Amino acid sequence: MTARTFSLAASLPLWLRHYQKAWLAGDLTAGLIVTVMLIPQSLAYALLAGLPPEVGLYASILPIVAYALLGSSMTLAVGPVAVASLMTASALAPLATAGTVEYAALAVQLSLLSGVMLLVFGALRLGFLAYFLSHPVISGFITGSAVVIAMGQLKHVLGVRAPSGSTWDTLVGLAHALPKTNVATLALGLGSLVFLIVARRYLARWLIAVGVTAKTADILAKLAPMAAVMVSTAVVAWLRLDMSAQVSVVGVVPQGLPHLGLALPGFTTLGQLWLPALLISLVGFVESVSVAQSLALKRQQRIAPDKELLGLGAANVVSALSGGYPVTGGFARSVVNFAAGAHTPLAGVVSAALMAVVIAFMTGAFYYLPHAVLAATIIVAVVSLVDFETLREAWHYDRADALSLMATALGVITMGVEVGILMGVALSLGVLVWRSSRPHMAVVGRVPGTEHFRNVARHAVETVPGLLALRVDESLFFANATALEDRIEDLLRADATVRRVLVVCSAVNQIDTTALGVLTAMEQSLSRRGITLELAEVKGPVMDRLQSTPLGQRLQGRVFQSVHAAFRPPPQQDSY
Amino acid sequence: MTARTFSLAASLPLWLRHYQKAWLAGDLTAGLIVTVMLIPQSLAYALLAGLPPEVGLYASILPIVAYALLGSSMTLAVGPVAVASLMTASALAPLATAGTVEYAALAVQLSLLSGVMLLVFGALRLGFLAYFLSHPVISGFITGSAVVIAMGQLKHVLGVRAPSGSTWDTLVGLAHALPKTNVATLALGLGSLVFLIVARRYLARWLIAVGVTAKTADILAKLAPMAAVMVSTAVVAWLRLDMSAQVSVVGVVPQGLPHLGLALPGFTTLGQLWLPALLISLVGFVESVSVAQSLALKRQQRIAPDKELLGLGAANVVSALSGGYPVTGGFARSVVNFAAGAHTPLAGVVSAALMAVVIAFMTGAFYYLPHAVLAATIIVAVVSLVDFETLREAWHYDRADALSLMATALGVITMGVEVGILMGVALSLGVLVWRSSRPHMAVVGRVPGTEHFRNVARHAVETVPGLLALRVDESLFFANATALEDRIEDLLRADATVRRVLVVCSAVNQIDTTALGVLTAMEQSLSRRGITLELAEVKGPVMDRLQSTPLGQRLQGRVFQSVHAAFRPPPQQDSY
Repeated sequence: MTARTFSLAASLPLWLRHYQKAWLAGDLTAGLIVTVMLIPQSLAYALLAGLPPEVGLYASILPIVAYALLGSSMTLAVGPVAVASLMTASALAPLATAGTVEYAALAVQLSLLSGVMLLVFGALRLGFLAYFLSHPVISGFITGSAVVIAMGQLKHVLGVRAPSGSTWDTLVGLAHALPKTNVATLALGLGSLVFLIVARRYLARWLIAVGVTAKTADILAKLAPMAAVMVSTAVVAWLRLDMSAQVSVVGVVPQGLPHLGLALPGFTTLGQLWLPALLISLVGFVESVSVAQSLALKRQQRIAPDKELLGLGAANVVSALSGGYPVTGGFARSVVNFAAGAHTPLAGVVSAALMAVVIAFMTGAFYYLPHAVLAATIIVAVVSLVDFETLREAWHYDRADALSLMATALGVITMGVEVGILMGVALSLGVLVWRSSRPHMAVVGRVPGTEHFRNVARHAVETVPGLLALRVDESLFFANATALEDRIEDLLRADATVRRVLVVCSAVNQIDTTALGVLTAMEQSLSRRGITLELAEVKGPVMDRLQSTPLGQRLQGRVFQSVHAAFRPPPQQDSY
Repeated sequence: MTARTFSLAASLPLWLRHYQKAWLAGDLTAGLIVTVMLIPQSLAYALLAGLPPEVGLYASILPIVAYALLGSSMTLAVGPVAVASLMTASALAPLATAGTVEYAALAVQLSLLSGVMLLVFGALRLGFLAYFLSHPVISGFITGSAVVIAMGQLKHVLGVRAPSGSTWDTLVGLAHALPKTNVATLALGLGSLVFLIVARRYLARWLIAVGVTAKTADILAKLAPMAAVMVSTAVVAWLRLDMSAQVSVVGVVPQGLPHLGLALPGFTTLGQLWLPALLISLVGFVESVSVAQSLALKRQQRIAPDKELLGLGAANVVSALSGGYPVTGGFARSVVNFAAGAHTPLAGVVSAALMAVVIAFMTGAFYYLPHAVLAATIIVAVVSLVDFETLREAWHYDRADALSLMATALGVITMGVEVGILMGVALSLGVLVWRSSRPHMAVVGRVPGTEHFRNVARHAVETVPGLLALRVDESLFFANATALEDRIEDLLRADATVRRVLVVCSAVNQIDTTALGVLTAMEQSLSRRGITLELAEVKGPVMDRLQSTPLGQRLQGRVFQSVHAAFRPPPQQDSY
């Protein structure tokens, strides 16, 4: 690399430097439509996180701009999302009371910590962290979270006070509070629920039937929550249901742009928040990358996970800076953004600008917005996240994956999001090691008249007396090296005439230090018994490493390019 | 299997049913020699665990017998060991004061819990759990533990009181206590240290030089600790150093066999002890299996990990039953047992019987045994566990393994054994996923005139226009599926003429649910762009699973037995 002089143009993101006029209409439209979706969502998710509504609005301005400058997705819509809001509530509940200034300050710290972690991961190029979670485990986690979120919103629909906490506490609290149900609230909440469900299921179809194009119909259907918010707010304001029927409403939302500023966390706070911040970062990153990836693929674009870390990290840092809370890429808004024609992150910048206008001048409009309707939009949004399809597929394709999915979902529901996600990571890795610890191995012989070698148990093949050729269908590492040793010793006990053990390494992509140790000990043990260990079809990178080890030295002249070469006497030829 | 009627003979272990007279002399000799080693070790390790000396003796009787009946190793010597003793001390330190009745009761519970866990793992055939730790991580753990243990014993050698706790506390405590050093104690401790070190290095050589056979010399050298114990005890008793110079001695050790009995743990205790018990079980099991395995291989015997779980589990349960503490297979004693001619676990039973005699009649002999000498035997024993060799080898062979080794050792030293071992597990798995997340992939072409296909970047090979053949050298699973997708998209952007993407699966041993999902999405995305996804050389077990999935259905006619078949037009032939 050559030294570069700094220039403003070169430091701008690629999409901005090469912006084309033809993209502008799409970006403006998408920005507007996403804003209409974002307003109720940001209020609702702040409610879910236990924060005042304006915090949701704050988290929907600067983070979008930061991501637009640093992220790699053209269409990811960053901001408050359901799962991160739940994780925020779960992290802060033991530390402060929801709704207090202290609680909001901790949310800011959580966002800051999470942002710094993501930036550090990005600087260290740890984008591969996104792949520590298998898809079934993520699916189980999201499904479990959706159930927890939906149950937690029921009290708002009923218009009752009930403790939040474990699933069990929530259920008991709801049961106790049921007799105190506020009928007007329930009517608004249930009405919205029914409207939103019907809209989600049928609205697009009806619109198409009356002549709207499919794409427009899809987008219009996604705006149903805004319609529910507007109609219900109007009804409450008109009938003054907040006074006459004690319907709980959003109330005063402070008008004006957020103040910028930041207090750094103390050691106690760091100690309390590092783990939740890490988990929120990990989950948010995994979710964002998978949404961004699936959208990018539709236009032959690519996502750079290391740049995503930087983009999301910066988004969270500026969210903290502007009094927000942890943000990440949202699924539904990103899809709408894409479908509405967004070509570049300019669409996001447009949203951010519109949100700034809303918060600067229009927060008064939210006064009569009933909590029950926000809760209804959350419930409908998260219920669509419940994913039985992946469970069904995994059940048929791979039982171990299906079991990890169910265990993760149950873990989240019964023990909370943090324990649930940690269980998920442990299960992902556990299943991986368990599988690899039982590698497929086959004794092979030559298909007569060819240079092909197949499993002696399945094919009529020729073998050479005294030569045991064993193919290992897995990389050799700490979890399975002993299995190879066990298999060879079993085979040797079954056939005392064996004098040459040939390990066919065509599927061995790596040999780690542990496996190298096992092979070295095995070679010595075999050699004491007058048996030679030989290798065949060792891959280039594996051979390169092996050659400089004591085992590599001892094996000289006994590593064959092909099984065929090892079968031909004398074995000294054709070896390297 | 046919139904079997119960018979006592059939329920006896195999080695006892087929016992041969020729083995008796070796078993008796080995049993006697191991006992001479075991007496000072059991007293010393009880001291290390913070327990009264008799607990070490109790843990050296019944556990050996239980293991002899259920374990699978012929020569593993079970009983108190250094690392498990350190882990016991570390688990109990926050819960009770060392030396109290409560502390000893918790040690019993720890042993019981650990034993029950091992039995359950054995019943569930979870022997593969032994392979969740890579060899470098175990080496780092043992080395770190050895450093912690040795530093913790220094106060006994100096004859001072100092707090135990973190490494930092230990160092600060020693520095403060240094001026109060008891000179007589230091003389005994240092004298023993020098004697033991010299004996370990030179005694065997000297004995050989004066005509002793190599084997006998090796064994005699291992008995040096007993000599140090006897001589120092005699000196202290003769000069009454315990009174005249305040040398700390073992004192009264209750005479008589342990009482059998057990109080079951309450929920609080369970909550406090389950994690340490699990870690002690895991580490003890891994250590035992690797010692047992290496000895068994020398005589062409095998170890059954699932039976080891049962043997060690039973040993810990009866240790708890007889007032002991967590036990496992010890390295040094097992090696001596083997070398002294033990053929069967009868040698262990002989040891157990001799230990029972010692505790029933001879505990008075330990009264004047100085703590400093026990500490010296511990220090010399654990310093030999420090393993730079593995670090050196790993550093040359595989840097990531070397780094996990160092991180685990540092983790144990700075943050304690429990955090250290958990870090070790996380690192083992982290390195595994990190490696697999960057699979080796190669675009291949045909070596002219053959059916061999090689990397286009390394060989002069023929390719077919419009056909991209990519070989993946790794199983496809959650951690690397996206890497394949990324690579294909990069290649497609580089060559717009590609119409067929052929993934060569010769090294793909598994495709998990996540990877299946990625492949399915990729096939659809490619297909929308007029590009077909094709597979070649799919292994039998992988194909069996794939066939019943939607992707398998869509790929019909596009899965080739060999790359060669895919290269031959028309592609519809030779497919299945």
